[in-house]
Amino acid sequence: MSDSLRVALGSRSYPIHIVGALLDRAELFEPHVRARVAAVVTNETIAPLYAARLEASLRHAGAKTLRIVVPDGEAFKTLETLDRVFEALLQANADRRTVVVALGGGVIGDLAGFAAATYQRGVSYLQVPTTLLAQVDSSVGGKTAVNHALGKNMIGAFHQPLAVIADTDTLATLPERELGAGLAEVVKHGAILDSQFLDWIEANAERLRTRDPAALAHAIRRSCEIKARIVAEDERESGARALLNFGHTFGHAIESGAGYGSWLHGEAVAAGMALAARFSARQGRIDTNAAERLVGLLAKLRLPVERPPMPAERWLEFMARDKKNRDGRITLILLEALGRATIVDDTPVAEIEAFLAA
Amino acid sequence: MSDSLRVALGSRSYPIHIVGALLDRAELFEPHVRARVAAVVTNETIAPLYAARLEASLRHAGAKTLRIVVPDGEAFKTLETLDRVFEALLQANADRRTVVVALGGGVIGDLAGFAAATYQRGVSYLQVPTTLLAQVDSSVGGKTAVNHALGKNMIGAFHQPLAVIADTDTLATLPERELGAGLAEVVKHGAILDSQFLDWIEANAERLRTRDPAALAHAIRRSCEIKARIVAEDERESGARALLNFGHTFGHAIESGAGYGSWLHGEAVAAGMALAARFSARQGRIDTNAAERLVGLLAKLRLPVERPPMPAERWLEFMARDKKNRDGRITLILLEALGRATIVDDTPVAEIEAFLAA
Repeated sequence: MSDSLRVALGSRSYPIHIVGALLDRAELFEPHVRARVAAVVTNETIAPLYAARLEASLRHAGAKTLRIVVPDGEAFKTLETLDRVFEALLQANADRRTVVVALGGGVIGDLAGFAAATYQRGVSYLQVPTTLLAQVDSSVGGKTAVNHALGKNMIGAFHQPLAVIADTDTLATLPERELGAGLAEVVKHGAILDSQFLDWIEANAERLRTRDPAALAHAIRRSCEIKARIVAEDERESGARALLNFGHTFGHAIESGAGYGSWLHGEAVAAGMALAARFSARQGRIDTNAAERLVGLLAKLRLPVERPPMPAERWLEFMARDKKNRDGRITLILLEALGRATIVDDTPVAEIEAFLAA
Repeated sequence: MSDSLRVALGSRSYPIHIVGALLDRAELFEPHVRARVAAVVTNETIAPLYAARLEASLRHAGAKTLRIVVPDGEAFKTLETLDRVFEALLQANADRRTVVVALGGGVIGDLAGFAAATYQRGVSYLQVPTTLLAQVDSSVGGKTAVNHALGKNMIGAFHQPLAVIADTDTLATLPERELGAGLAEVVKHGAILDSQFLDWIEANAERLRTRDPAALAHAIRRSCEIKARIVAEDERESGARALLNFGHTFGHAIESGAGYGSWLHGEAVAAGMALAARFSARQGRIDTNAAERLVGLLAKLRLPVERPPMPAERWLEFMARDKKNRDGRITLILLEALGRATIVDDTPVAEIEAFLAA
C-alpha cells in the first residue's frame, strides 16, 4: 500500500502523505521550504512534543525556521489569535515567500491556514496534522477559518496547502477524548458515502478505540480517499462537498451554544450526526433501525449521542447562521440510507423546531 | 466615448462604469443584486450623503438592503472594524449569496472587499467608489486589505469585484485634500507607464484642481485603462503589477511611521514618488531634471513632496516589511524615464539609508 494520496485540483493539486515517522523526513519538506522562511504555527500543548523535531527537519531541508505558539483550544480560534500570528510574522519580517507550517490539530490547521491565506494577501502553507480529526478530515481540502462569537467558522478562506504530511506516530500522545473526536469524522465519511467502510468501522470499533496502528492507518487512508474525491469534484462547496457537513449543522449549534471549547468539535459532530440521523428517520427518509444503528456505533465508540439541553429557539438561532443556508432556508444534510446522504433545503423550520423541542 | 471599460480576467472579468448619476441607475446593479441581500458598507461621512440613494436603487433592482456604517478614516482600516462588519452581517443572518456593496473611498473599498473575501469563506461584492483616489485606482484590481500596527495593508486577499460603478458626481462633495490625494495616483499612472498622459496632466493641472468635469473624467478613464491593463496581465502581482507600487514603498513607511490617518494615502504616495524619483536620479537611473519635473508637477497639484522627519533606521524598519520584498532585500520601483518605471531588488540597504539620512 502506497503511503501517499493526491488531491486532484489542477494547478492546486497536492499530495497527502500518511505513515509513521514523517516528521523526521526532511526530503518530504524540502521541495516546499528550501531557501524560505518556514513559520511553524503550533500550540502550547504540541510545541514541547513535536516542534523541535519538525524544525530540525525543516532546517535540514534548507529552511530558516520561526516558531509561533498560540494557546491550545477551540476558544482561541479567533481573529484575536490570528492577529498575534500576524504580529509574529511581521516582527520577523516574514515576506511573501514564507511558508506557514501548521503543526497541530484542526484548530491550528484552520487558524494557520487562514493566516497563510491572508498574510500579505496570501502565502503558501503545509498541513502537518497531529490529531486524528485533522488527519482524517480537517487538514485536507483547503477550508480555513476562525470562529466568530456569533457563529462557528464564519470567517475564512478556501486556500489549498502545498501538501499534507500526516505522521501517524503523533497519535500516540493524543488524549482519549481527542481520539474519539477524530473517530466521529471517520464514521461521518462512511455514513455519507460508503456503507462498506461503515461496516468495517463497526467491526473494528474496539481496535480503533485501542489505537491498533493498522486499523487507524486504514481509517485515515480511507477517510482521506473519500474526502479527496469530494474536494476534487467540488472545491468551493457549490454542491456535493456540502455532504461532508453531515452532523455539522446541529454540531456547530452545539459548539456555539455551549461556548467554544467545552465540546470538542468531533464530539459535537457525533451528537449532531445522531440528531441528523434521527431527524432523517422522523422525516421518513431512512429506516429507524438504520438510524439507530448509526447512533449505536457512535455510542460504541464512546461518543456523545444525546444533545445538550438548549431551548429550541436557540438551536434555530445558530442553525439560521449556517453557511449552507440560502435565502433564509436552513439547509440540512440528511440520510437516505447508511452510506447515502443528501442535501435538503426545503425543510419547514417548524418541523425542525418540533423535533428539537421533543 | 463609451462610459465603460472592462478588466479582462477570464471568468473573473468585470466592467468599470464611469459617468455621472450612476447611483440612480438601478439597471446597473440589477444583474448583481436581484433577489439577494445587498449589504452596503460605508462610513459616517458618506452614509448621510449617498447611502439612501444607493439603497433605493438597490431595492429597485430587487435587493433587500442592509446598511453597515463604520467610522471614517485610515485609522479604522483594522481587524477590529472588520469584526464589526462580520458581526452586523451575522446578526442579519446574511448568507453566502449576500453581495457586499462598498460605498466610499479607498479605505471602505479595501475593508469591505476584504470582508467579502472572508465572510463565510467568500461572498461577492461591488465597488461603488466615491473618492477620486478610489475611482482612479483602489476600486479596480481586486486588492483588498486591512492594516496592521506593524505595517500597511499587511492582511488581505485578492478578490475581484463583480463590477466597479464610479459615479463622478460624488466628487462634487470631496474635500480638497482628498481630491489632491486622488490626483497623486493619477500622476503615478502617467509616471510609470505613459509620458503622454503625464504631459496632459501637466497641461491640465489647474483644470484638475478646480474639478473641471471633462478633465476629471479623462483622468479617471485613462487611469482605469492603464490599471485594468496591468491587472489583466498580472492579477496577483508576480511581475508588472508591482510597478503600480511606485511611490508606495516610501509612502507606506510615511503612513505607518506617522500613524494611520495623519497623512492621507495619496499624500504619502506623492511624497513617496518624490523620494523615489530623487533616489532614481541619485542612482543615475534618470536625469535629475526629469525627476525634478515630476516633483514640480506634484507640487503644482498642491501635494506634499518633502518627507516627514523620521530617523533613517525607522524608515528602513517599515520598508523592510514591504510586501514586494524577497529574501531580506528591499524591492523598489524606480524611474528610468518619465513614463517608464522598473522593479529594482538589488539596491544595497546602505545606499537607501544614506539617501534617507541626507
